Amino acid sequence: MLGKCIENVRKCVPLVHNITNYVTVNDVANVLLACGGSPIMSDEPDDVEDITTICGGLNINIGTLNKSSIEGMFLAGKRANELGHAVLLDPVGAGASALRTSTAIRLMEEVKFTVIRGNISEIKTLAHGSGTTKGVDADVADAVTEETLDSAVAFVKALAEKTGSIIAITGAIDLVADADSCYVIRNGRAEMGRITGTGCQLSGMMTAFLVANPDNRLEAAAAAVCTMGLAGEIGWARMQPGDGNSTYRNRIIDAIYNMDGSTLDKGAKYEIR
Amino acid sequence: MLGKCIENVRKCVPLVHNITNYVTVNDVANVLLACGGSPIMSDEPDDVEDITTICGGLNINIGTLNKSSIEGMFLAGKRANELGHAVLLDPVGAGASALRTSTAIRLMEEVKFTVIRGNISEIKTLAHGSGTTKGVDADVADAVTEETLDSAVAFVKALAEKTGSIIAITGAIDLVADADSCYVIRNGRAEMGRITGTGCQLSGMMTAFLVANPDNRLEAAAAAVCTMGLAGEIGWARMQPGDGNSTYRNRIIDAIYNMDGSTLDKGAKYEIR
Amino acid sequence: MLGKCIENVRKCVPLVHNITNYVTVNDVANVLLACGGSPIMSDEPDDVEDITTICGGLNINIGTLNKSSIEGMFLAGKRANELGHAVLLDPVGAGASALRTSTAIRLMEEVKFTVIRGNISEIKTLAHGSGTTKGVDADVADAVTEETLDSAVAFVKALAEKTGSIIAITGAIDLVADADSCYVIRNGRAEMGRITGTGCQLSGMMTAFLVANPDNRLEAAAAAVCTMGLAGEIGWARMQPGDGNSTYRNRIIDAIYNMDGSTLDKGAKYEIR
Repeated sequence: MLGKCIENVRKCVPLVHNITNYVTVNDVANVLLACGGSPIMSDEPDDVEDITTICGGLNINIGTLNKSSIEGMFLAGKRANELGHAVLLDPVGAGASALRTSTAIRLMEEVKFTVIRGNISEIKTLAHGSGTTKGVDADVADAVTEETLDSAVAFVKALAEKTGSIIAITGAIDLVADADSCYVIRNGRAEMGRITGTGCQLSGMMTAFLVANPDNRLEAAAAAVCTMGLAGEIGWARMQPGDGNSTYRNRIIDAIYNMDGSTLDKGAKYEIR
Repeated sequence: MLGKCIENVRKCVPLVHNITNYVTVNDVANVLLACGGSPIMSDEPDDVEDITTICGGLNINIGTLNKSSIEGMFLAGKRANELGHAVLLDPVGAGASALRTSTAIRLMEEVKFTVIRGNISEIKTLAHGSGTTKGVDADVADAVTEETLDSAVAFVKALAEKTGSIIAITGAIDLVADADSCYVIRNGRAEMGRITGTGCQLSGMMTAFLVANPDNRLEAAAAAVCTMGLAGEIGWARMQPGDGNSTYRNRIIDAIYNMDGSTLDKGAKYEIR
Repeated sequence: MLGKCIENVRKCVPLVHNITNYVTVNDVANVLLACGGSPIMSDEPDDVEDITTICGGLNINIGTLNKSSIEGMFLAGKRANELGHAVLLDPVGAGASALRTSTAIRLMEEVKFTVIRGNISEIKTLAHGSGTTKGVDADVADAVTEETLDSAVAFVKALAEKTGSIIAITGAIDLVADADSCYVIRNGRAEMGRITGTGCQLSGMMTAFLVANPDNRLEAAAAAVCTMGLAGEIGWARMQPGDGNSTYRNRIIDAIYNMDGSTLDKGAKYEIR
């Protein structure tokens, strides 16, 4: 059951090293604290190996990458691999610039990722080596819909097999797959796209779920996606007239803070294909 | 009518490239999403040209500038000029340090800006080559008041003519001018100065307005200023006993999220001189 | 009386230069504005000396340090010393990596700090040259409790004497000491640890208190600690069912915004040993 996965996070209080963009980093930290984890941020090449060593997992997010932080990503990723830590890649904006695309692809070549999580355009870019990402948002033409679901599930399983990583594609319908099984998740609300960084927040939180559930990582990744989506539904239900995306951001993080295993089990909407 | 300008943002969903400070960047992103735009942040010199190419406009904000991001500002600005994109300069802290003053002035020499937006002390620094900026806030001695309004309007029109840019000076009274016309705007509340980054947020939002209203840029810039000020009024009206600047920040962004053209047309307080 | 200290901040509106991490920087700025100060952030070596010159105090926080910002810390610290400004060190993560530990210790050797503020594990690391910091949180084994209070008070006074700095250790019980006197403070709530950056926020705010109370710096530092803790209590009292750490963050900053001297004097819980 997915609820067990968040309960394990609260018991284990996993320390997560984040090399992440400066746009959404504060929310990533607060979401990690909300779900029961503990965040630490460091991107300096001379600092990252020590920091990742004391952590249980590593979240690499390439938004606002720079030459120094890119070097930090490779050093931390390799050290985390040596230590057998969970490592997640969030390829923000892959397809939007040559540097982002090539950095993500090089990271996939040199670091073994437990999970790669992005929107459909970013993940297609990684699969094909080029893409049509619209800034940091998915291209509408790429969207996973009920009509394209069968082929999307096949795509994500094939990419998981090829890369050896769990692949998580988030959007109106979320897909979380290894080579054999794909969670098709229908939690969340479209309005979450009007808040900056819900994807980045999910990546941070998912890393904590992976650390706290080492024997059940596919389920842990799916549980994190359901937690985020369900928090989006619970947070929306508390919105008042006049509220907007800034208040919604707070309510989603608050809902994660209050999420327990039984709420998650009752609210999670998914099937396994 | 100014209301049309925000409606155009919501229709066009302009992608805005921001090279901005790490203090207020999250709020800038959420304000851009609130008004109907889409933000992307990138300051790495090897990344900015690709990113600005896929965007409609560029917002350059020199708060927390560093050697690398300065290089990024020039590269992105020149590319955006080649592509005919709207480009905005927010000279945060010009007058407070030699590096900030000289960077802003060099940017004005090498990049053609659609709009330059700052507080009165920053803009005077750019006009005279030196200034008395008090940190990132305007010097009280510089303030635009009803008493100094005539000379301030003349100053801002003259600077617009000299630079070929729309000049926007925000404070208790806001001025938005080209060489011929000056919007004198009286929206907003003094308490907005107790929130970090309302100026940065406005610069990001204004860039979206410029992109979505290419044939009417002076009006678009004025509409963005009125939207921010009116959101400050609407947000304040929703404050409860015990609320302070952190809640006020959320309520202002929420008010932008809920702003429509007719609310803006009814609430905008301006004259054209 | 401690209440006088916050009243002095509101009268003096101290400009505080912050070289701080990008995780919590926005909250640091809003807390500085909430308490009546004015924040400016700058870490670029070519910028920091000018910026610190126009300020009254300097807050150095080593979270997310990098090679360039480290250079900025030394340049700004030395200039602030020359000018007789209040200078605070927040050694975030000292003990968690060699770079953080060595940077904090080198800073203490080359810059004279008015206050050093951290959690018990970070401060023990500075005292002993190595430590067991758990990421950016204190190690449970180090915690200051009623049982260990006598020895903790002796430790903090001895370190204050050795360094010539006021030492502030925050946790369930807070200690603020010079060589002779130690404020033992029991404000605050455990839930504040579920918000990222309450320590960073306190460091920024404390710097403003130091600047505004130059003749009474031990009391000013203690007043800042009481203000933060009391704001945590007031903010918690306003929490509604369904609220969590994101809303709590807003409510704490709001409570600082509304704090006056008499509220602080009534709510501060401390003894002097």
